[in-house]
Amino acid sequence: MLKKIEQRETRKTDVIERIKSLRLELAKLETQIKDAGLPVIITFDGWSAAGKGSLISQVIKALDPRFFEVVSVRAPSDTDRRKPWMFRFWKEIPMKGRFTIFDRSWYHDCVNGYMYGELGKKGYKHRLGDIATFERQLTDDGYLIIKIFLHITRKEQKKRIEKLQSSNVTAWRVDDKDRYNLEHYDEFRDAYDELIESTNFDYAPWNVIGANEKTSAVLDIYEVIIGSVKGALAAKADKKKFIPKAQFETVSPALEGFNSVQVPKLKDIDLDKSLTEEEYEEQLDKYQNKLFKLQNLCYQKKIPVIICYEGWDAGGKGGNIKRLAAALDPRGYEVKPIAAPEPSELARHYLWRFWNRLENDGHFTIFDRTWYGRVMVEPIEGLTPKDRVDQAYREINEFEAQLADWGAVVIKFWINIDKDEQYRRFKEREETPEKQWKITDEDWRNREKWDIYEEYIDRMTELTSTETAPWVIIEGNDKKYARIKALKTVIKRVEEALEKK
Amino acid sequence: MLKKIEQRETRKTDVIERIKSLRLELAKLETQIKDAGLPVIITFDGWSAAGKGSLISQVIKALDPRFFEVVSVRAPSDTDRRKPWMFRFWKEIPMKGRFTIFDRSWYHDCVNGYMYGELGKKGYKHRLGDIATFERQLTDDGYLIIKIFLHITRKEQKKRIEKLQSSNVTAWRVDDKDRYNLEHYDEFRDAYDELIESTNFDYAPWNVIGANEKTSAVLDIYEVIIGSVKGALAAKADKKKFIPKAQFETVSPALEGFNSVQVPKLKDIDLDKSLTEEEYEEQLDKYQNKLFKLQNLCYQKKIPVIICYEGWDAGGKGGNIKRLAAALDPRGYEVKPIAAPEPSELARHYLWRFWNRLENDGHFTIFDRTWYGRVMVEPIEGLTPKDRVDQAYREINEFEAQLADWGAVVIKFWINIDKDEQYRRFKEREETPEKQWKITDEDWRNREKWDIYEEYIDRMTELTSTETAPWVIIEGNDKKYARIKALKTVIKRVEEALEKK
Repeated sequence: MLKKIEQRETRKTDVIERIKSLRLELAKLETQIKDAGLPVIITFDGWSAAGKGSLISQVIKALDPRFFEVVSVRAPSDTDRRKPWMFRFWKEIPMKGRFTIFDRSWYHDCVNGYMYGELGKKGYKHRLGDIATFERQLTDDGYLIIKIFLHITRKEQKKRIEKLQSSNVTAWRVDDKDRYNLEHYDEFRDAYDELIESTNFDYAPWNVIGANEKTSAVLDIYEVIIGSVKGALAAKADKKKFIPKAQFETVSPALEGFNSVQVPKLKDIDLDKSLTEEEYEEQLDKYQNKLFKLQNLCYQKKIPVIICYEGWDAGGKGGNIKRLAAALDPRGYEVKPIAAPEPSELARHYLWRFWNRLENDGHFTIFDRTWYGRVMVEPIEGLTPKDRVDQAYREINEFEAQLADWGAVVIKFWINIDKDEQYRRFKEREETPEKQWKITDEDWRNREKWDIYEEYIDRMTELTSTETAPWVIIEGNDKKYARIKALKTVIKRVEEALEKK
Repeated sequence: MLKKIEQRETRKTDVIERIKSLRLELAKLETQIKDAGLPVIITFDGWSAAGKGSLISQVIKALDPRFFEVVSVRAPSDTDRRKPWMFRFWKEIPMKGRFTIFDRSWYHDCVNGYMYGELGKKGYKHRLGDIATFERQLTDDGYLIIKIFLHITRKEQKKRIEKLQSSNVTAWRVDDKDRYNLEHYDEFRDAYDELIESTNFDYAPWNVIGANEKTSAVLDIYEVIIGSVKGALAAKADKKKFIPKAQFETVSPALEGFNSVQVPKLKDIDLDKSLTEEEYEEQLDKYQNKLFKLQNLCYQKKIPVIICYEGWDAGGKGGNIKRLAAALDPRGYEVKPIAAPEPSELARHYLWRFWNRLENDGHFTIFDRTWYGRVMVEPIEGLTPKDRVDQAYREINEFEAQLADWGAVVIKFWINIDKDEQYRRFKEREETPEKQWKITDEDWRNREKWDIYEEYIDRMTELTSTETAPWVIIEGNDKKYARIKALKTVIKRVEEALEKK
């Protein structure tokens, strides 16, 4: 593919005038992008010394600097290294109506990491899978992703690197990796070709731009961006997913299957299970002590533990979390209560706020309600259209698989009670002054939708109970039993993870 | 002070029962804290091996883990090091109605940094000043700060460290600094005494707790926390600033004065200044090139540049920012548009969202509207009570002084136009399809308050134009003149900073 690009003729006549007019056109499109709430991601990858920096500068001259951000991707920080590898890209995705321009993207971490020997073949392939997922999830959500690869010939690269090195002012901009890139030009070309071929997704294809001649490159880039933006705006107006025009043959990655684990339906759960006060006190003490020791080992071995709590209103999540947390060293865990999203969260892919809440490896993170709101309250209350909810089951499985790849133990609890028990607890809350804040009109309204919730919950546990992240239904009518079961489950899962480590 | 604590008798009888009852009391107070929206910060400092971790675990047993966070302060990360030193504490302050517990606080960075030779005497004193400011700003805003120092005797410390070292399981928890702390016990005791004396602020006094005996320490800590919380809730109900009971004599740090720089009143600004098209084109090109080179030097010398834009509606901020940004390498600057705060921002000290938007050193940050909304739109629209606005002038000066201490060049523009020019521009916007999004009913409403805004702006520039961060009024009726003046100002300020470096 790269060869083909070299053979293209560069246009010379009227280039400057054409660029000026395209710049104006893009500036005008910007208003439409804002109005339509289209989020746009543009990535720049390519050879060392291909001119990414100066080409980005050219491109953004058209744009209002209040509506874009340029993210310069360098080596991951020490915090980034303690998160899943995609974290540093997820956290930077734009809000609706805005641009994020990546100076080097997630592809750099893969192909160059592999070529520099920082990443094995298997790790490289695995990351490409993560990228396919990432780009699909975003484009499914209406993001426009424009991927640009700047190609220069070996001769041109050599000339540029030598020129940079020859001056004191610019020599620092050339490092060993740049020289390596030049010395192994042919190998890199093959690797780039293979990369472009295998990640030329129909929903986010590559645009390879010949960049030996800069003015001509600017023109090509403008044409690509304007064409894509227009297409995406038209598709958005038609409420269709945008499929961009592709320069080369595209690939449609097969959707990965997940090994599902069977979970009983809620109506089949035996809610009579219970513990006596003595059994409870004895086991609570025993399991809390055990968990405390396991947490220490997780910290030392840098295993992240993610515990998700979902359940009926008044199911006893709070008290359950409290008993679990009481076992843990407070410096090594955090509870994340999940409420309605804030405006800046609503303006991005809905998984963004969960990516952003991940703690460092070695820590316990307890989510009090989770990303599963997407497939329960959101469709039931009509907050999210059906097609996005249908996609969410897979997106969630993918998200949790990425957490597991990072090394996380992902534990998911549904705390189940029956309708009578909920009524009893609601009434008790209303009658106890210190508990009145816990009960609202909304709780009563939700209760009226019990049957539809039950349907959605059964569907959720069926579609998202995977081998790496299975659902555990906790019998919750007896709070003591529920707390001990949660503790025991966490201990078992953590022990399994420690054994494998 | 520490000596006195050692001589106190430890209470032995009924301690366990008393702890249980205090734990219940604190759990009940928690609901009141939530209802009242009281934000609570508790810091734990003290000797190595004083038992911070296990005492924190004890204390939080009373608390609902969804309403507190424990922040474990260790060495600053590489990102923290590229921000002002208080950044890593500011970013962690709690929302209203919630607790943040610091395992080691800002004091650790000071006194231990100094004793370990990582910080000079002057730097140490300077940081104490920053701390006095930090704690005052937060308590003025209604935060409750409970500072706990855990004191153990030399004999006890020696025993504990030896015990930790003797077991394979715990030996890793003792490091060179812990041993140094023990070996130089007397010097540290003097340093801690001096620290406690000089930072025993009336608004945030120290609580020194004898921790040789843990159960007794837990009891003391509960009493301190419960007493403070009750006092703070009562003060909040009375709309008064809470002044806690102090264990030792307190100090009231004198408020630092700022060297003010005179700024003309808006009515005295000559708005006839202008440039011809030729002058503009020539100077724009010249100054943009110059600024681009200076940015490179700032990046190399790690100088942060913070440029604040304020001005009348339709004053031309957007176009001005665009011309400035066009001069810069996009990888080294970011524009931060400031809109109304989100719920999580409103729930914290109002400077929090600006602390959180600071970029790394070496970067240019351009604020499109700023923290000055606090002393313009907020009082005019009645969003913030007068006493908090009055305090804001000083808080802002302090904030900017801390940015300057960090090495930042702080540049503040007020883009000034007259009322006729604004009218002309509003009308033009209404009549131009691409510009209609820029004009709203609110703009017309604000215009009606022109005179009161002018009053507040004059007051703002008078009270917050300091030597390190002076206001620059830009004559804005002619956009070309305004843009060149902004560019020239940035160049001059950056050049001055580079000369000093």
